[in-house]
Amino acid sequence: MPKKVYSIQDIDAFPRRERAQFINSLNGIKSIHLIGTQNAQGAENLGLFNNVFHLSSSPAMMGVLFRPLTVPRHTYQNIRETGYFTINHVPIERMQAAHWTSAKFPKEVSEFQACGFHAEHLEGISAPFVVESPLQIGLKYINEYPIEENGTVLLIGEIELVQIKEEAIEENGFIDYQELHTAGTIGLNTYFSFQKQARFPYAQPMENPKSRE
Amino acid sequence: MPKKVYSIQDIDAFPRRERAQFINSLNGIKSIHLIGTQNAQGAENLGLFNNVFHLSSSPAMMGVLFRPLTVPRHTYQNIRETGYFTINHVPIERMQAAHWTSAKFPKEVSEFQACGFHAEHLEGISAPFVVESPLQIGLKYINEYPIEENGTVLLIGEIELVQIKEEAIEENGFIDYQELHTAGTIGLNTYFSFQKQARFPYAQPMENPKSRE
Repeated sequence: MPKKVYSIQDIDAFPRRERAQFINSLNGIKSIHLIGTQNAQGAENLGLFNNVFHLSSSPAMMGVLFRPLTVPRHTYQNIRETGYFTINHVPIERMQAAHWTSAKFPKEVSEFQACGFHAEHLEGISAPFVVESPLQIGLKYINEYPIEENGTVLLIGEIELVQIKEEAIEENGFIDYQELHTAGTIGLNTYFSFQKQARFPYAQPMENPKSRE
Repeated sequence: MPKKVYSIQDIDAFPRRERAQFINSLNGIKSIHLIGTQNAQGAENLGLFNNVFHLSSSPAMMGVLFRPLTVPRHTYQNIRETGYFTINHVPIERMQAAHWTSAKFPKEVSEFQACGFHAEHLEGISAPFVVESPLQIGLKYINEYPIEENGTVLLIGEIELVQIKEEAIEENGFIDYQELHTAGTIGLNTYFSFQKQARFPYAQPMENPKSRE
């Protein structure tokens, strides 16, 4: 296939927004999440994140990468105030409303109300879950690592609770994402659905793996 | 929709592999990548990773999360020896071969040869790129952050070079992932393709965003 090479000098010469768009897209499509929080007074907030990842199974931890805290980040501030947050997958049917939560609403506006989502509270987690989400995770703040090189902050949460659409629970701990029908993104503006292609067994050196499905 | 709640105590009571499978799946589908490296003697290695992420645009940096370094990790060792690595997207047509690279091959075996991939070298990057990949990124090691809570290591690389399939280059810095036809995964065993659904403009508080495509 014909390919084109860009050195970092070539990329640095792109117009500013094109350069950011291009670099933001390089790691590929990933799931998108709404993070629910509330402040000490109970005012709820909903933020759109495309940088949520699995950190470890034992202990059960997830990470969220925050952009530099040089401007107020309501989600970050609320997590530090209350110690809790929720990670909610976005169903494809709600991607437009989810995208809307990324607008710069004033601090006193709840994105739940403004964008048409509903909050629910579950045992032991002092942060709101998104009712419309088919997979909701409640987490407790554990620690954070400031990344010196670029000012971002890796925040770590421990999983305390999971609520999931019943039809998506498979045998053996698998989650059926086809059934969840959740959304993925590139660069916080282009949205994708997922189509299952194969499930392979644990790979062995002597044998090319065959899909089980 | 009917949902089921699991507390972390419920999840901890799952059989060990089911528990790991379940927690690994919670953050959702993400792109999968082959990381190419070589050691100081030039022996090539190819490793499969599902935890590669965008860190920042300025400077242009990406992160890779390594599992605890309690066993030899060839990719990690090679990056520390030479200071370079490549991140290569996996095309759907090669997902089976990519999955095979996750088998525990002896150190002297190159996963390039064993699994049917071809290596190429590009200006200034002392690590092999995967010829079959439609989007290849060359990076220089910058720093690493050991995550105390679970023994994982966040390794940071700065982007030095990008090689991309020409047909996938759009206007304004967008990359056409539909054209790249790359793969995503859950938990390193279930593979997905992506289907573009919408592209929204930058969101404004007063207006529900409409897709531009």
